[in-house]
Amino acid sequence: MSTSTEQQQAFLADFRSMSSFGATAGSGVDRQAATAADGQTRNWFRGLVEGHGFEVRYDQVGNQFTLVEFVPGAPYIAIGSHLDSQPLGGRFDGAYGVLAGAHAAMRLREAFALEGGIPLYNIVIINWFNEEGCRFKPSMMGSSVFTGKLPAEQVLATTDSQGVTVLEALESIGTIGNFNLEVAAYLEIHIEQGRSLEDDGLSIGLVESTWGANKYEFVVHGEQAHTGATEIADRSDALLGASALVVAAREIANQFTTDEHMVITSCGEFTVFPNSPVVVASRVNLLVDVRSTDPTVLAAADAELHRRVTDIEQWATVRFERGAEHIWAAKEYDAAGLLLAAASAEKLGLPYGTVRTRAGHDSTNMKDIVPTIMLFVPSADGISHNEREFTSDADMLAGVDLLTDLARRLVMGELVHP
Amino acid sequence: MSTSTEQQQAFLADFRSMSSFGATAGSGVDRQAATAADGQTRNWFRGLVEGHGFEVRYDQVGNQFTLVEFVPGAPYIAIGSHLDSQPLGGRFDGAYGVLAGAHAAMRLREAFALEGGIPLYNIVIINWFNEEGCRFKPSMMGSSVFTGKLPAEQVLATTDSQGVTVLEALESIGTIGNFNLEVAAYLEIHIEQGRSLEDDGLSIGLVESTWGANKYEFVVHGEQAHTGATEIADRSDALLGASALVVAAREIANQFTTDEHMVITSCGEFTVFPNSPVVVASRVNLLVDVRSTDPTVLAAADAELHRRVTDIEQWATVRFERGAEHIWAAKEYDAAGLLLAAASAEKLGLPYGTVRTRAGHDSTNMKDIVPTIMLFVPSADGISHNEREFTSDADMLAGVDLLTDLARRLVMGELVHP
Repeated sequence: MSTSTEQQQAFLADFRSMSSFGATAGSGVDRQAATAADGQTRNWFRGLVEGHGFEVRYDQVGNQFTLVEFVPGAPYIAIGSHLDSQPLGGRFDGAYGVLAGAHAAMRLREAFALEGGIPLYNIVIINWFNEEGCRFKPSMMGSSVFTGKLPAEQVLATTDSQGVTVLEALESIGTIGNFNLEVAAYLEIHIEQGRSLEDDGLSIGLVESTWGANKYEFVVHGEQAHTGATEIADRSDALLGASALVVAAREIANQFTTDEHMVITSCGEFTVFPNSPVVVASRVNLLVDVRSTDPTVLAAADAELHRRVTDIEQWATVRFERGAEHIWAAKEYDAAGLLLAAASAEKLGLPYGTVRTRAGHDSTNMKDIVPTIMLFVPSADGISHNEREFTSDADMLAGVDLLTDLARRLVMGELVHP
Repeated sequence: MSTSTEQQQAFLADFRSMSSFGATAGSGVDRQAATAADGQTRNWFRGLVEGHGFEVRYDQVGNQFTLVEFVPGAPYIAIGSHLDSQPLGGRFDGAYGVLAGAHAAMRLREAFALEGGIPLYNIVIINWFNEEGCRFKPSMMGSSVFTGKLPAEQVLATTDSQGVTVLEALESIGTIGNFNLEVAAYLEIHIEQGRSLEDDGLSIGLVESTWGANKYEFVVHGEQAHTGATEIADRSDALLGASALVVAAREIANQFTTDEHMVITSCGEFTVFPNSPVVVASRVNLLVDVRSTDPTVLAAADAELHRRVTDIEQWATVRFERGAEHIWAAKEYDAAGLLLAAASAEKLGLPYGTVRTRAGHDSTNMKDIVPTIMLFVPSADGISHNEREFTSDADMLAGVDLLTDLARRLVMGELVHP
C-alpha cells in the first residue's frame, strides 16, 4: 500500500478548503467552540465525509463521529482530534488531525477494495467538542465527558462570558445528538507545539508521556478605591496582588528548572474589575498553571507557588480565593502502541523520536480508558496558538502516511483484539 | 440669611431622588458618561431645575448649563461638578456638587426676593460631561473642551470600547446642543476622596492646590503562544511585562515617599489580549500614573518609572510602547478665593482647613482660565470610587450652607467685578 500523488493532492486541497472557515487576516483561524465559525467547519467536514459515503453522528455534548464501516457489526478503532481553535489561533492545531483521520480512512477503504484483507475493526473519526477551552472552560471538554471524567449535565450547563450555555450554543449550530459508541483503541496525530522535532531534524514524534500539570483558578479580592485620592497605606489593590503572582510564577519556573527537569509556569487569563482608568481594582480573576516533566519537582514548585500566594496576601493587603483546580499527573502512553508506531515509522523510512507533550490533548483523556497512540508532526519554531503556526506540506503528508499505516495495523488487530 | 429646616429637608429629599438613577445593589450608582443611566439623571435634574423656573441648555459636547437669572444681561458666576459616575461608583462623587449648586441658587433667589440686594452676576450651574473618563477617555472631558484644552471635534469622535462615539452617545440620550457662555469665576464643592478632613475633625476643606500627576498609556507587546507547549526561553509574555510594571510602580511609591513628600502610583486599567486560558498574552494595554505633592520628587519618581520600563523590557523580553500621556503640573488655586472661602467658613462657624487634592476635578481645568474656588466636604474613611462612599447628611448640609454663602459673595462682586 503506497500513497498516490492524487491522494496527496486531495489531502492538501481539503486542508486549504478547511482553513477558509473562520479565517483571520493573519492567515490563522478563529473557531472557538460552538461559535458560528466552528459550526461552519463542522458542517463542511460533515459534507466532505458524507460525500465519501461515511455517516456522521453527534453525541449529547456535540462530539462529532464519522463512521467508516468496513465490516458490519465490528467494533471500532477511533482516530480523533478537534476542529475548534483558539481566538486568532493557527490553522493546523487540531484540524490537521481530524482531516488526517478522514483521509487515512479513505485510503484504507480504497486499499481494502484493491488489495483485499479482512479488517477486524471499523474506524470512527472523532472531532471532539471544545478541546481548546477558551470560550467554555475547562479544555478537552468533549473527550472528558466521553471518558467519564466530567458529567454531561455539568458540561451542558457551563456558560461562556456572555451567559450562553454549552447546550444553547450547540443547539444554535445544530451539532448535538444522542449517539454513543464504545471504541477499542485511540489514535491521534497533532502538530508538536514545541520545537524539539525541528531542532532534532525529525519528521515524526512518538509521544511517550504527558507532563504533569496543576492548573489553578484564583480570585484576588481587593477594595475598589480612587487611584488618585487613596493613600498607598489605605489600598487593597487586587491588580497589584495578581500582578505579583504573575511575576512570582515566572520566578518559580526559573528557580525550579534544572539541567534534568524543566518547570513551566503560565498565566493565560487575567481579568480586572472594574477596570476603569481611575479606580483601584476590587477583583482580578486569573488562571495560573505549573507544569513539569518530573512529579517531585512539580510538587516542590507547586508548594512554592502557594507559599508565595501567602506572602503576596501580606505584601499587597489582598485576599486570594482558590477556585477550581485541575490536576493532571504525568502519565505514560501505551508501551505496545509506542512500539507499533515506531515499527510503522521504520517501515515508511520516516525519521522519528520519542517526545513528551506539555500541552493537553484529547488523547490525554483517552489513554486512561483504551490503548492510545499519540503522534506529532513538526511545528515551525514551535509556534502555536498563534496565527503564524506552520507545518509544511511535506510534514503534513508524512504524518498522514504514518497515520494511515498505523490505522491499518490497528484495524487488522495488531494492537488490540476483539 | 440663614438656612431653614425646609431648605435642608428639600436638599436631602432631592439627593435621595437623584441617587435612585443608575442605583446599584450595593447602594452606589453606575452612571457612566452618556449611558442611559447618565441620560436619566440629566433629565431628572433638568426637570428639577425647570420646576424651579430655571432654564437648561447644552453645549456641543454635552455640558449641561442651568441658567439662574437675577439681573437680565449680567455676566455669570459658574458653580459646577458632574452627574456621571464610575462603574459601581458612589452616589456622592460629583452629583453632590451639582445638586448643591442648584440648591444654593434656589436659596439665593429666595433671599434676594425676601431681603433685597442687587447682584452683579447671574449664576449658571454646570453639569460637566464625562468627568470620570471611564467609558470615554480622558477624564474631565467636558471642562477640557470648555477651557480650550481639547478640541470639540476630537472629543466628539472619541470612541468607547464598543466603537460608539461621544457624538453618537450624546445624541442617543438627547443631551447635546450648541449653547455657549463665558463665565467670570468658578466655584465647585465635592467630597474629599481622602480622609484628612475626617482625621482632623474638620467639616470643610479649602483646596489650596492640586498635586502634580503624570499619566501614561502603555501598550506592552509580546508574542501569542501556547502556555503549555512554549518553553520559558521562547516566550515573550506581554502579561508578565505588564505585571512587572504594576509591581515596580508600587515599589516606586514606597521608595520615593518620605516624611515630607508623598508619592502615589496607580494602575487603574489593565486589559489583556487575547486573554484565553492557554495562550501567552500578545498584548496588554495599561494606564500607569505617578502623583506627588512635590515637583522635584515627582520628576525623580517619574524618571525611575521609565528606567524600570527599560529593565522590564530586557527581563521579560517584551516591548513597551508609550501611548498618550497627560501631564498635570501641581498648581495653586486662586489665593483671594481661598481667603474668601475661609471668611465664609469663619462666619458660618464651620471648622475648616486647607487641603491639596490628589484627584483631578473640573475645577483643575477651570482654575486655569478664571478665579476658582474648590471646596471639600468629608468622605468617610476616605473611601471613593466605591459603592460604599459616604458623606453624612450634616456634612452635606454644612457644605450647601457654605456654597450658598460663597455664591452670594461672588454674585455680589466680592471676588471679581464686571
